Amino acid sequence: MFKKVRVGIIGLGTVGSALVKLLKEKQKFIRQNFWLDIEIAKVCDKNPSCRKTAAIYKVPFSQRWKDVVEDSHIDIVVELVGGLGVAYDIIKKAIGAKKAIVTANKALLAEKGEKIFSSIRAKKVPFGMEASVCGGIPIIKSISEEIILAGIRNIYGVLNGTTNYILSTMTKENKDFSPALKQAQKEGLAEANPALDIKGEDSRHKIALLSFLSFGFLPPLKDIKCVGIENIEKLDIQYARELGFTIKLLAVAKKEGRQVELRVQPALIPQEHPLAKTYGAYNAVFINTQKAGNFLFYGLGAGGEATASAVLSDILNISLGRPLPLPPPQKIHLIKPKEVLSRYYIRFQAKDQPGVLAEISKILASFKISIASVTQKQQAKSTFVPIVMLTHKAVEGNVAEALRKIDRLSFIKPPTHLIKIEDI
Amino acid sequence: MFKKVRVGIIGLGTVGSALVKLLKEKQKFIRQNFWLDIEIAKVCDKNPSCRKTAAIYKVPFSQRWKDVVEDSHIDIVVELVGGLGVAYDIIKKAIGAKKAIVTANKALLAEKGEKIFSSIRAKKVPFGMEASVCGGIPIIKSISEEIILAGIRNIYGVLNGTTNYILSTMTKENKDFSPALKQAQKEGLAEANPALDIKGEDSRHKIALLSFLSFGFLPPLKDIKCVGIENIEKLDIQYARELGFTIKLLAVAKKEGRQVELRVQPALIPQEHPLAKTYGAYNAVFINTQKAGNFLFYGLGAGGEATASAVLSDILNISLGRPLPLPPPQKIHLIKPKEVLSRYYIRFQAKDQPGVLAEISKILASFKISIASVTQKQQAKSTFVPIVMLTHKAVEGNVAEALRKIDRLSFIKPPTHLIKIEDI
Repeated sequence: MFKKVRVGIIGLGTVGSALVKLLKEKQKFIRQNFWLDIEIAKVCDKNPSCRKTAAIYKVPFSQRWKDVVEDSHIDIVVELVGGLGVAYDIIKKAIGAKKAIVTANKALLAEKGEKIFSSIRAKKVPFGMEASVCGGIPIIKSISEEIILAGIRNIYGVLNGTTNYILSTMTKENKDFSPALKQAQKEGLAEANPALDIKGEDSRHKIALLSFLSFGFLPPLKDIKCVGIENIEKLDIQYARELGFTIKLLAVAKKEGRQVELRVQPALIPQEHPLAKTYGAYNAVFINTQKAGNFLFYGLGAGGEATASAVLSDILNISLGRPLPLPPPQKIHLIKPKEVLSRYYIRFQAKDQPGVLAEISKILASFKISIASVTQKQQAKSTFVPIVMLTHKAVEGNVAEALRKIDRLSFIKPPTHLIKIEDI
Repeated sequence: MFKKVRVGIIGLGTVGSALVKLLKEKQKFIRQNFWLDIEIAKVCDKNPSCRKTAAIYKVPFSQRWKDVVEDSHIDIVVELVGGLGVAYDIIKKAIGAKKAIVTANKALLAEKGEKIFSSIRAKKVPFGMEASVCGGIPIIKSISEEIILAGIRNIYGVLNGTTNYILSTMTKENKDFSPALKQAQKEGLAEANPALDIKGEDSRHKIALLSFLSFGFLPPLKDIKCVGIENIEKLDIQYARELGFTIKLLAVAKKEGRQVELRVQPALIPQEHPLAKTYGAYNAVFINTQKAGNFLFYGLGAGGEATASAVLSDILNISLGRPLPLPPPQKIHLIKPKEVLSRYYIRFQAKDQPGVLAEISKILASFKISIASVTQKQQAKSTFVPIVMLTHKAVEGNVAEALRKIDRLSFIKPPTHLIKIEDI
């Protein structure tokens, strides 16, 4: 009557132990609603103290991951080890053993996706990765089984909770970057070494995976332009607000014909846009389609329980015979960042003396950059005053060159702050 | 190599003809990505002029729906007729013939769901209804296959594009209800007879279906409290804004233990809440869970192409062997509206004379309704001045009785305006 499914879980960190707890809690519900008997056949962690967690939930424990992958009774291997080392061995071995695989490992999938996805397709191994992008948000299945049919054009994502918490705190509490980062660390929302988040690397992994699922295109990570939030100052946030914008660390994937633009960088987006209302540790993905207008998905991007519930949905769907459909790879040209046309926010720090604006404007004009607005406020007791310009659409490479030239002027205090305006 | 699936489409209105077009356009993509060969075996409409549409796309046409349901070669019957008459016959017959069924017919599913869902479960007929709630938004599958595992507590939805367009127009352009409705009709966003939308009936169908999928609970529709937007005045919208709120037609489903509260009515929600940013014809669903925090889904709730893309996703998923999992019905107690505790916005129209506030306050106090704030503005040349009160939490039945009593006072111009505050 009930279909029996045996699961092996490798990695009992925050997500792994939340998953064991959630699975135990939901076993009865899953039997009633889905006629499935999901059993935790084995849990594994190299850390021997995890034996205690296993004992609490009365599940067999091992310190060796091979005990899970080589166990012929186990149907689904859940990889929650993270990182690019052992996790990769586990997945390769599990594919070889033709076991179903569930993983939340975005770094591994983004780095080694080409190989992993092609062997999964070739060997027809049931696969799930719902938790790899935006934790609990059901974005992976929604894209792969529904939205893809509407013709995906542009994806804009606030994909990283740590940086979004920091930017939200800077915006709402008028704080500088460093104290906002400290606050995030205090709240448990930033790692002791927060570089992966702050510098945008985590968002880069996620947008690469969304590009793969949406467009069948997973380029080498290094080719995806990636700028972090460490140089955003509260002054920029204030100016942005006055001009009607909010600053977000935005991951972008845009497709036109066979060309795709991919990038992660801070961007000014209109205050009234629903993405601008994604506060704190929340994530959101905004998708623009040919046939069905715009979509927004919003939810908790991290946290043990939210991520565990996404992992559990993969286990459920694989058990129901609904693995994630992976797209065939497509021949796509990645647009060079410097060729992209965009509007920009530019904040110069300049001496308050005659001729400054004239000189800046002349250089911008020589690079075909046209100014849409200028804000300069009187500031008492300051040698350098901020001049904020919004440009019309200009070529990214030209803007970079113009700023290099302007930053060499004697009356300019470098570096000039440049932030993209995303016309969502 | 390719799995062949034959689809019959009944009803060639806006959605039906958009579906035929979309399916033809996406046939190659679906072959490449999913190894499926989806063929339109027959289309049907009682209107003979639809033969032209069929001819354009070179698909067989019939005026008799039985030609589709009784065709032994057809695997999936798509019902896009709408209404409670023929559509019900089609679905009953298709269940009897054990054909897979896709429908967008929220009214039918909400009215006759108990019978339809139980025969679908009993006969194990593959089924899809993604387009029945919020058109293109993949909310049905996301709830049924993922979010349900996180423990759904509360659902708040802006589920009707017409009323949302009207309220947005009243809010943004400072218009009264009637001209805003006319504008919606001019834009093709409201029917000539807009009663089903305006009075909340369409939202009631949708929240009933969300309750069924989330809680396994589909009560008789008449038991779901339903208030429309026809009595909302621009004055209420202005006061709401000054107090930090936006007025939305809100569909609500809340579960605690075995008790569920279900309702559709205008409500004040905080301006900064993401739901408040759902403008125009867009829909949004906000879901609060035990394990995974909050979710928001936002997208086009109607329109031929958006709805067709949701219908196509059902066809795809059924073809892939992934019908919608229907929950078993649960024993649930529907909370009586009058027992619900809530905060309220109340606008009295009172003569500007001594003792008015004292009298109103006395009556409210006698019903245990405590006042949180009062706003009364001087108005020149008006016999009656508006007095706006926000209450603390009070019992709905008490508030109704108090207002009945107050509306009989000589210095009050009835009816007093009462709008729920939803503390999302």
